[in-house]
Amino acid sequence: MNRLAILHRATDNYAYVCSNYDVCIMIKTGKGEIDRIQLIHGDPYHWTNGKWCNDRAAMEKTGSDEHYDYWQILITTPTRRLRYGFQLSNKKESVFLGEDGFYSIPPNKTDKYFAFPFVHSTEVFAPPNWVKDTVWYQIFPERFANGNKKNDVPGTLAWGSTPPKPDNFFGGDLDGIIDHIPYLKDLGITGIYFTPLFTAKSNHKYDTIDYLEIDPQFGDKKTLKKLIDICHKNGIKVMLDAVFNHSGFYFPPFQDVLKNGPDSKYKDWFHIREFPIQTKPLPNYDTFAFTPYMPKLNTQNPEVRNYLLKVARYWVEEFNIDGWRLDVANEVDHTFWRDFRNQIKAIKPDVYILGEIWHDAMPWLRGDQFDAVMNYPLTRNVLALFANRTITSEEFISKMTKVIHMYPATVNASAFNLVGSHDTPRILHECDGDIRKVKQIFTFLLTFIGTPCIYYGDEIGMDGDGDPGCRKCMEWDISKQDRDMFSHIQKLIQLRKQEPLLANEGSLRFISFRENGFAFVKASNNKKILVAFNVSNKERSFSLPQEYADLKPINLYSGQAQTSKTIKLDAYGFAILEFNSSYN
Amino acid sequence: MNRLAILHRATDNYAYVCSNYDVCIMIKTGKGEIDRIQLIHGDPYHWTNGKWCNDRAAMEKTGSDEHYDYWQILITTPTRRLRYGFQLSNKKESVFLGEDGFYSIPPNKTDKYFAFPFVHSTEVFAPPNWVKDTVWYQIFPERFANGNKKNDVPGTLAWGSTPPKPDNFFGGDLDGIIDHIPYLKDLGITGIYFTPLFTAKSNHKYDTIDYLEIDPQFGDKKTLKKLIDICHKNGIKVMLDAVFNHSGFYFPPFQDVLKNGPDSKYKDWFHIREFPIQTKPLPNYDTFAFTPYMPKLNTQNPEVRNYLLKVARYWVEEFNIDGWRLDVANEVDHTFWRDFRNQIKAIKPDVYILGEIWHDAMPWLRGDQFDAVMNYPLTRNVLALFANRTITSEEFISKMTKVIHMYPATVNASAFNLVGSHDTPRILHECDGDIRKVKQIFTFLLTFIGTPCIYYGDEIGMDGDGDPGCRKCMEWDISKQDRDMFSHIQKLIQLRKQEPLLANEGSLRFISFRENGFAFVKASNNKKILVAFNVSNKERSFSLPQEYADLKPINLYSGQAQTSKTIKLDAYGFAILEFNSSYN
Repeated sequence: MNRLAILHRATDNYAYVCSNYDVCIMIKTGKGEIDRIQLIHGDPYHWTNGKWCNDRAAMEKTGSDEHYDYWQILITTPTRRLRYGFQLSNKKESVFLGEDGFYSIPPNKTDKYFAFPFVHSTEVFAPPNWVKDTVWYQIFPERFANGNKKNDVPGTLAWGSTPPKPDNFFGGDLDGIIDHIPYLKDLGITGIYFTPLFTAKSNHKYDTIDYLEIDPQFGDKKTLKKLIDICHKNGIKVMLDAVFNHSGFYFPPFQDVLKNGPDSKYKDWFHIREFPIQTKPLPNYDTFAFTPYMPKLNTQNPEVRNYLLKVARYWVEEFNIDGWRLDVANEVDHTFWRDFRNQIKAIKPDVYILGEIWHDAMPWLRGDQFDAVMNYPLTRNVLALFANRTITSEEFISKMTKVIHMYPATVNASAFNLVGSHDTPRILHECDGDIRKVKQIFTFLLTFIGTPCIYYGDEIGMDGDGDPGCRKCMEWDISKQDRDMFSHIQKLIQLRKQEPLLANEGSLRFISFRENGFAFVKASNNKKILVAFNVSNKERSFSLPQEYADLKPINLYSGQAQTSKTIKLDAYGFAILEFNSSYN
Repeated sequence: MNRLAILHRATDNYAYVCSNYDVCIMIKTGKGEIDRIQLIHGDPYHWTNGKWCNDRAAMEKTGSDEHYDYWQILITTPTRRLRYGFQLSNKKESVFLGEDGFYSIPPNKTDKYFAFPFVHSTEVFAPPNWVKDTVWYQIFPERFANGNKKNDVPGTLAWGSTPPKPDNFFGGDLDGIIDHIPYLKDLGITGIYFTPLFTAKSNHKYDTIDYLEIDPQFGDKKTLKKLIDICHKNGIKVMLDAVFNHSGFYFPPFQDVLKNGPDSKYKDWFHIREFPIQTKPLPNYDTFAFTPYMPKLNTQNPEVRNYLLKVARYWVEEFNIDGWRLDVANEVDHTFWRDFRNQIKAIKPDVYILGEIWHDAMPWLRGDQFDAVMNYPLTRNVLALFANRTITSEEFISKMTKVIHMYPATVNASAFNLVGSHDTPRILHECDGDIRKVKQIFTFLLTFIGTPCIYYGDEIGMDGDGDPGCRKCMEWDISKQDRDMFSHIQKLIQLRKQEPLLANEGSLRFISFRENGFAFVKASNNKKILVAFNVSNKERSFSLPQEYADLKPINLYSGQAQTSKTIKLDAYGFAILEFNSSYN
C-alpha cells in the first residue's frame, strides 16, 4: 500500500458541512491501491471503553483520476459533533489513518482521530437557491443590439458592417437588449451576465470612469431599471460585472493623482511607486497586467474600500440586481471580499457572487467570499476533448474527475460553466467550424453539473477568433442565423428545466467507452439519466455496463425508445437516455 | 519517484504571504525520494516566449517526518504577482509539477502553473507583535491566593488544608493575585492567562451566570481594574477566558427557558430539542459534552451573537485586557469568530486571540479568526519523549517536524505552548516526580519556537494528578517550595529575554543523536544557538555535526566555555550552547 499517496485533512473539499447534521468526508488514495475504506466515527464524548458503538460505515469510490482514487461518504451526526478515522484495506493489509498518522488497529484515544468538531447548519456552502437551475447568457452590450441611435457616439459604425477592432463602436445599448428579451425568452435562458455597463472609455468598459453611472452609450439608469424589470417579469436574473481590481485611466481620482501628484488626496487610492507618474516604457504604478490605462485600486485603503462597497451596495439596493460577477477577483484581497459579501448579502440574501478566477479557487470558496467561480478548468477539458481532440475520452474522464473532486460538491452545483466568452475564441472557431462538435459541447454543458452560460451568438452559430474576433455584432438577420443550432440549444434548455437530473440533482458517475466515447450518469432514487458521446469522426456502437442491458430507455432528445445493451451514435453524436425506476 | 506522495496546494501552510512582497512556498515529498527542487516562478504577465527569465530558485529541505520531506522557499515578488511550479529531481529523473499535474518539461502556458495571484501585505498572518516575546503564566484564580477573606463563600476551607475536590472552595481571589505580582515579576513572566473570572457557580467558573460581572468570590470590577493596572505597570499582559460555547445552567436566559418553556423569549438562545426540558438520563438540549449544567449557546441566533460580542468588546473597551482565550473554540461557528475578531481588533488592534483547539486547527488560523491555538500536539510529543519515554528522540524529531510544518511559520511563532493546565495532570506528576525531567521540559519549552506558558505552581515543583488533583492551592510556604526549580525557570526566562534566538527569531533545525538525545539549532545571520538534551538515564556524550567541531561555544545556562566536538550531558541533562559569528 502506497501510504504516502493517501491524503485527508479535515477542511475544504475533504470535510465540509453538506446539510443540517450532515458532514461530507472525502479521502484520496493511490489509484487502484485500496479495495475498501470504512469510516470509523462517533461523538468524541460518547467514547466509552476505547471505542464507539455502531461506528463503521463504508465509503464509496466516487471516481479516479490519473493518479488517485477518490472516496466519499455522507455522515449524519445526531449530536452534530464528529471524530473519525479511516480503515483502509486491500488484499494484503489493513491500516487505520487518523490525524496523528497510521496505526495497525484503531487507536483507543479520541485525540488520534480527525476532528470535525461541530456541524453548524449556517456553514453549509449555500449559494442562492435559484442559481443551480439557472441557464446564463452572456451579453457584451456594445455588440448585442443597437436599440437607440440617439446614444451612438460620433463615428459609430453601421451594425456588423466591418470586423470588430479593439477600438471601434457599433452602438449596442440597453434599448437593444430590451428589444430582444422575447428572443432570449424564446431561447429559454433564465439569467443574463452583462459585461460592464458603467461609464468607461473603451468599447469593453473594463476601464471604469464612473462606477455609479450607466455609460451614456448604453443608456441611462431609467433604461437599466426598465431592462431589469422586464427581465424579472420574464423570469430572467440579471448579473452585472464589478471591476474592482482596477479603475480606468480616466477615473477622476486617478486623473487627480496625475494632475496633483503627491499632493493629490487620492494618491493612496492606487499603488504609485514614485512620482512623477510615467506610463512608459512600463507604468511606475501598479496596474492590471502591465496596462497603463488600468491602474490598480488600493483596496487596502479604507477610503477605497468604502467607496467600492458603496458601489456594490448601490446597484443591489437601488436596481435590485441579482448577482455580481467580479473581474480579476483573485488579485483583490480576501478581506475586501468578505466585507463585500457581508454587505450585499445583508441587503439581498439571495444575491449571487461569482468570481473570475481561472485557477484553483479553494481559498475563495470557503463560504465567506464567493458563491462560485468561472469554471475554466472545465472549459479547458471540454475544448481539449470535443473541439481539439488533444486528449482521449479516458483522459477527459480522469481530468474531469479531478475537477469535480477539487471542491466540495456543494460548490460544484453553482459553478459557472462556460465554453467561450469575450476573452476567448468562439466555440465554433475552436471546433474549426464543425457544427456537430459544437452541438456535442452544448449537450455536455447543458446536462452536466454546474450552471451553464451561453456566450451571445454562439446559439446561432456565430464564429470569431480571440478578442476582438469574438466580439462581432450579434447577427439579427434570421437568414444568416444557424436556426438549427438555436433549436438544439433551445431544446436542451427545455429538457434541463423539465428534468432536475439534467441540472444539479442526483449523483454523477462517468462511464468510459475507451478513447472514442464516454457517458456520464446522473442518478436519483428512482431514475437514472445517461448522457453519451461519440467523440470520433465515425459512427460507433458502445456497450453499456451490464446493469443497463435489456432495459428500455427513452432518448429524451429524440423522444424515441431505444435498446440499451449497446448504443449506436453518429460521428460526433450524442444521446440523452432516461432509465426510469423499473430499471432495477 | 513516488509522484503520488508529492503534495502542494496554493493555500494554508503550503503558500502564504510572509511579509510585504514575500511569499513562502512549501512542498511535501516522499521521504528520501527527491534530491533537489527548484521553484520556477514569475509574474504571469511577464511571460514571454513561453518562459520567464531568471526564474529558478533552489528550495531548502527544512525537515522530515516519518513519511515525508518538507521543502520551503521564500520568494520575493517585485510585482506582487506570482505563478510557479516545481522542478523535482533525483538521480533517476526530473519532473515538473504544476497545478495541472506532472510534465516532463516546464509547460509553456502559464495556466499550467500554480497561482498566488497577488501578495497583499495585509494578508500576512499577524498576531500582536508583543506575543512572540511573551512568557505566559496560567492562574486558576480560586487556587492561587486568598487576599481577601471578606469575599470568601460560606464553607471556604483553610488554604491548602485538604485536597482539591470538584466542588470545594479555598477562597482564592483577585486581591490574592495582586499581592503576588512581585512574585510573578521576580519569576519573570510577562503575561497572565486567567481561567474564567465571571460570575459562575462552580469553583472553575466555566459555567457562567453573568458574563458582565466579576464573580463576587474573586472581587469586583474595581479590583480587576487595579489588578490589570498593576500588571501593565509591571510589563505583564492580561488574558481572560471567554466561555462562549456554552453558558452555565444558572445563566438567567437558560433559567427563563426552564421556567417558561416554549414561551420563553430566550428559547432560541440555546439548542432545545424538545419541551419540557429534561436533564436526565441525558439532557434533551445541546450541551458541552453531555453535561447538563453547561447548555450550549446558539451563536447562530443574532441576539446571542450580539450579546456575546457585546461581552467581548466590553472587557477590552472598559478594562483594557490584552487577550481573550476562547474556551471550546472549535465548537463555535467560524462566522461568529470572524465577527468577534473584527469587533475587538477594531477597538484594540494588538489584542491577542487564542483558541482552545486540541486538534489540527488550520481552518481557524487563516488570518480571519484566531492569532493562535493551544499547542496540544506539542504537549503530547513533549510528554511522550521527556516524561514517559514512549517515543525515541528520533521519533520526537519526526513528530515535531510534522507539527511545525502543519501551519505557516508565521503561525508557529505565536503558538501557545503548554505542558500542563487545569485540564491535565501536572508536569511533575507526568514525570513521576523526577525533577531532572521537569527541568529538561521547561528548558525545551522556554527555548523552542512559540510562546511558553507555565501553569501556576509548576515553577515551585507542585504535583497533582488530573482534575481536580492539578488544582491544588498554590504553595506559598517558601520552605515547601522547590526553589531550585524556581531559579531554573527564572534563569530560562531571563535568557529568553536576553537572546531573541531563544524566543522566535531565526530558523530552526533539528539534530538527531539517535534514540537517546537530540538538539535543535536556531540560527540567525551571525549566530547559532544549539539546545541539546540527553533523554536517557545515563550520562552520555553526543557527537555534534562536523560544522560545529573545534569551535568554542559558550554554555549560556552555566556561563562556561565548552568544546563542541562532542557534548557531554548528565542523565536527563541539557545544554544551551551559543556559537557566535566566528564559527564560520
